[in-house]
Amino acid sequence: MAKSDKLTFGVIGAGRIGQLHARHLSYRVAQAKLIMISDVVEKAARQCAQECQVAQYGTDYHDILSHPDIQAVLICSSTDTHAKIIEEAALAGKHIFCEKPIDHDLGRIDRALAAVDKAGVLLQVGFNRRFDANYQRVRQAVESGEIGEPHLMHIISRDPGPPPIEYIKVSGGIFLDMTIHDFDMARFLIGSEVEEVYVAGAVRVDPAIAGAGDLDTVMITLKFANGVIATIDNSRKAVYGYDQRVEIFGSKGCISTANNYPNTATVQTKDNVRRDLPLNFFMDRYVDSYLEEIDRFLKAVINNSPPPVSGIDGRIPVVMARAARKSYEENRPVRLDEVE
Amino acid sequence: MAKSDKLTFGVIGAGRIGQLHARHLSYRVAQAKLIMISDVVEKAARQCAQECQVAQYGTDYHDILSHPDIQAVLICSSTDTHAKIIEEAALAGKHIFCEKPIDHDLGRIDRALAAVDKAGVLLQVGFNRRFDANYQRVRQAVESGEIGEPHLMHIISRDPGPPPIEYIKVSGGIFLDMTIHDFDMARFLIGSEVEEVYVAGAVRVDPAIAGAGDLDTVMITLKFANGVIATIDNSRKAVYGYDQRVEIFGSKGCISTANNYPNTATVQTKDNVRRDLPLNFFMDRYVDSYLEEIDRFLKAVINNSPPPVSGIDGRIPVVMARAARKSYEENRPVRLDEVE
Amino acid sequence: MAKSDKLTFGVIGAGRIGQLHARHLSYRVAQAKLIMISDVVEKAARQCAQECQVAQYGTDYHDILSHPDIQAVLICSSTDTHAKIIEEAALAGKHIFCEKPIDHDLGRIDRALAAVDKAGVLLQVGFNRRFDANYQRVRQAVESGEIGEPHLMHIISRDPGPPPIEYIKVSGGIFLDMTIHDFDMARFLIGSEVEEVYVAGAVRVDPAIAGAGDLDTVMITLKFANGVIATIDNSRKAVYGYDQRVEIFGSKGCISTANNYPNTATVQTKDNVRRDLPLNFFMDRYVDSYLEEIDRFLKAVINNSPPPVSGIDGRIPVVMARAARKSYEENRPVRLDEVE
Amino acid sequence: MAKSDKLTFGVIGAGRIGQLHARHLSYRVAQAKLIMISDVVEKAARQCAQECQVAQYGTDYHDILSHPDIQAVLICSSTDTHAKIIEEAALAGKHIFCEKPIDHDLGRIDRALAAVDKAGVLLQVGFNRRFDANYQRVRQAVESGEIGEPHLMHIISRDPGPPPIEYIKVSGGIFLDMTIHDFDMARFLIGSEVEEVYVAGAVRVDPAIAGAGDLDTVMITLKFANGVIATIDNSRKAVYGYDQRVEIFGSKGCISTANNYPNTATVQTKDNVRRDLPLNFFMDRYVDSYLEEIDRFLKAVINNSPPPVSGIDGRIPVVMARAARKSYEENRPVRLDEVE
Repeated sequence: MAKSDKLTFGVIGAGRIGQLHARHLSYRVAQAKLIMISDVVEKAARQCAQECQVAQYGTDYHDILSHPDIQAVLICSSTDTHAKIIEEAALAGKHIFCEKPIDHDLGRIDRALAAVDKAGVLLQVGFNRRFDANYQRVRQAVESGEIGEPHLMHIISRDPGPPPIEYIKVSGGIFLDMTIHDFDMARFLIGSEVEEVYVAGAVRVDPAIAGAGDLDTVMITLKFANGVIATIDNSRKAVYGYDQRVEIFGSKGCISTANNYPNTATVQTKDNVRRDLPLNFFMDRYVDSYLEEIDRFLKAVINNSPPPVSGIDGRIPVVMARAARKSYEENRPVRLDEVE
Repeated sequence: MAKSDKLTFGVIGAGRIGQLHARHLSYRVAQAKLIMISDVVEKAARQCAQECQVAQYGTDYHDILSHPDIQAVLICSSTDTHAKIIEEAALAGKHIFCEKPIDHDLGRIDRALAAVDKAGVLLQVGFNRRFDANYQRVRQAVESGEIGEPHLMHIISRDPGPPPIEYIKVSGGIFLDMTIHDFDMARFLIGSEVEEVYVAGAVRVDPAIAGAGDLDTVMITLKFANGVIATIDNSRKAVYGYDQRVEIFGSKGCISTANNYPNTATVQTKDNVRRDLPLNFFMDRYVDSYLEEIDRFLKAVINNSPPPVSGIDGRIPVVMARAARKSYEENRPVRLDEVE
Repeated sequence: MAKSDKLTFGVIGAGRIGQLHARHLSYRVAQAKLIMISDVVEKAARQCAQECQVAQYGTDYHDILSHPDIQAVLICSSTDTHAKIIEEAALAGKHIFCEKPIDHDLGRIDRALAAVDKAGVLLQVGFNRRFDANYQRVRQAVESGEIGEPHLMHIISRDPGPPPIEYIKVSGGIFLDMTIHDFDMARFLIGSEVEEVYVAGAVRVDPAIAGAGDLDTVMITLKFANGVIATIDNSRKAVYGYDQRVEIFGSKGCISTANNYPNTATVQTKDNVRRDLPLNFFMDRYVDSYLEEIDRFLKAVINNSPPPVSGIDGRIPVVMARAARKSYEENRPVRLDEVE
Repeated sequence: MAKSDKLTFGVIGAGRIGQLHARHLSYRVAQAKLIMISDVVEKAARQCAQECQVAQYGTDYHDILSHPDIQAVLICSSTDTHAKIIEEAALAGKHIFCEKPIDHDLGRIDRALAAVDKAGVLLQVGFNRRFDANYQRVRQAVESGEIGEPHLMHIISRDPGPPPIEYIKVSGGIFLDMTIHDFDMARFLIGSEVEEVYVAGAVRVDPAIAGAGDLDTVMITLKFANGVIATIDNSRKAVYGYDQRVEIFGSKGCISTANNYPNTATVQTKDNVRRDLPLNFFMDRYVDSYLEEIDRFLKAVINNSPPPVSGIDGRIPVVMARAARKSYEENRPVRLDEVE
């Protein structure tokens, strides 16, 4: 396509994240044009369309896939529909941006990726955190050699509160639902593949989570092909808000990020020296990264260049999640090739 | 007007700040509709209109003032035109958002404000920093009593580099061109009026600035009606970037802000513990506040409520700037009522 | 003894740490009186005695053990002599402060502790970091419930550079030589016992360390009886200096410490925003804790109260170190009761 | 004297600061030997002597001045006695360390300095803050050119609470009693002389301070011979503790210090992100600088080198204090040469 043209979009799924993407496409990505929005709940589709000044909306995403004016789709529907819609969208010749995870099942993922390959369309997976300014800076420090060869890494990733138990029951568990972002981040930041995973986990936040067969507090050790050793620290509930930090230690130095705050003010009183709590959750904390990932997707399509987060990048964290679960169940380090 | 309707806008002046406002109106303020853009340079108006997907543009702002579909105008043209356009826009019944300063001349300001009063339109002056999250938090601490009665304040406001000498020659000098933001901030944060100003100033950055009759390095002492004593620290050139901080000390505590940074990463090497430089200049540092001020202007018009920055708020910092210049020239504290 | 009397001391071993203790006893602990210093190197004993204005010194520590005026001894000799001297000192009825570790061999440790028990003297082990202001504050936060029930902990403990290879060959390896402090800290901060250890380790700093059969880069996972999961991050070489931090995350909050610096100054230039490197090594970083531990030892003797770091506290980290080594060798989590 | 000998001391005045110096001389300065302590209150002298294990004490400082074994005296008595004792000590051939200020009266200061000159003894004035690690680092940044030519400076110096009104009545007022440290610091850090002072001041802490003819809240502007413009911000009462910071802005950068804290821990809870209050007052905050200044005095005597803080350095801040008072009373900038 000509670089000056706009890329036309359909958004499938008008939940929280679908709405965010739709607003960005309508108002903040100059080269994008949002044509249609679908959601299985008609009211959700309509409200989102109104908010974004989009004329066409409906309950059947096939109307988007068959729409002749739409070049690219954003799949923001529930996880269990991702793989199927990817296959159908690829068949329809649409470029695809799909929210994470692609699926919980490796076989379904592989079929979806095969369909994408066959169709020759572009697929990008929604690991938005890669585009956050903090993580971009850390990746740059590793890539440029600013901190030398990386040796050790810590990823801290704690949510302000657990999702509803009903969600946890179908989410695939903490590793597929929450840690998956950190698995992706680990690979992205180090630029090497993880070979082995060891998990120490517990239920400390809410016994109902144990009842749902899941964990809420985990400490994961990763061994990378390039020798880096890393930990991922996850909790479903940090009372002070969303805690998202990373530290990489290398032969020439160390880089660490802090949380993002709503302001930089420090207050000193007779009681303490304090500041306000960090930004509370991902819609505030990572808002810029959601915009950036769509912009990068659009540019990849326009320039016919590889997507910054590929289908394989979407698959590997699922493998890691499965190895993590197995490690927890068997209380031993598990190699990724054991779960393929 | 009905709250659900969009407020229609014309933007007068498509320079750097006009472009910023135009983009915000087109893409980020849901209730705004930008109808027309004018600039004395036709190409500037056209490019801005294209970028914002606005059909109408031209070189004569009178076309905006006489446009029947435009309810509000943003005056972003050169300072010497502000007062005149305010008068004309008021006469045309348009609501007015005007960039600071209104004018360098108190008589012209007074005529403009009188025209606004007579027409019954709303006028807001562009002291955007009031809407920045850091300053909002500081104001809240003062207003809520979190730090008790305020006693002392420091405003640090240093630019990354001086403007061109040609600009300095016509800008009205550092007090009208640069400190004016800090004069407004001082009044806003403390919530009381300044009665007396004392200036110690120098030329340390560039002798050409002395040649233009101006200063580039000033330390200003303010005495407020409520007893607060404050300083404003200005330099035209902070080599490390835009330095924008404030500290207020009171009977129950102290609140201080830090600069804003592009990321939160800290790097430790054998040389030092360091982070990247703060955001470099106002277009990066204050971008959110520019959006917020327009949103607040729009809401004030829609709700028929007072503007958050009034015409008087635009006038008083000009008085302070004049007192500051007199103080420097006579090396003595000068009361504001001396320069009325 | 009467509380107003001075406690009399002999120092065995006048190396770096023995000298530090001797200076503290002579000059900074008001209720202490240093009577005699011994070192196998006569010159070392003499110089230390002169610096501390102590009249008596010699090469045979038995002269200290048999000295009728000495009530307590500090064992600062090489690790392989600790257990034997503890036994002899206990038999001689002296109260004992012994540098860590007591020994590498659990059988020898047990014999030494039995001798102490039988003699009814007081034994304190030199885990000085417990008395550091940062760790005291963290312990207080856990103990008081300020952060609720602890869930997760990270201990970062990186040295500025590795010791000589000759030392590494006899030190017992990184777990007994370096991590042992962190094993103690983990137990102290959480106030519960570790049940299982998992180690991921590597040689990244110097291949000669591999040649000596040791590791220089390790990430250890600990599972505590009370459910806490923790990591210890060790590197023999942090180019930016001594890196000593801890973070504990709990049900009601999180507490994190930063490094200690020689000054609080921040410098901003065109290149970056920076501060000087943290205090470089333990003699600078932990100097106050060395003073405090001796003061607490003295008070325990005078008040006939339990020592703040007991013989058992000296034994358990050795067990942990052995489990850690086994975990690394077998690449699996190892329970502490496997190595008893 | 031979460099290996100890320098012998007498301490005159066993109040809070005299006790601190006496302890340092007895226990922490290896080359010092404290021979005698005097205080007008016999009990104070005796207790201090006991604490420091000094055999000789008394109520008449002349016994120290005439003591044949004492080479140097520390004058820690009340301010009104300083100048007289300096004269007598100089006549007695003793080297002199005198607490600040020398006197409130310039004539008496000049007589004391003349006596010192005539006797050829060494006089050092107790501006201890110069020896603090933070201020040393700032001075180094200025001296080395790390921040280029200095342009602007802010000194923040706030006490945790006001002294008793009875003390304020005889202290000479805030400028001689409190700001005098900051006047010295200003000269020390910039390395140039102040030419003009402007004061804005108020009573905000306690009306009784107004009743005593003094101020408790002041903002001072200083103009230096080398063009630097500075402010000093003083309050008698910072509810959060002792606030001691400085910032110097120059052509190549900026250096800023933060307060010193009892620990580096940060606590995050559902309420805020906080740390403990800074060290509360000078005995905690500046304890190392008190030790360092005595060590430097001792070395200056031993090496027959100039003292790091001379008699002139003791005189000039008194001139600045007098100019500051005059500026406040006349509400105008006052040149230092006006008050000579």
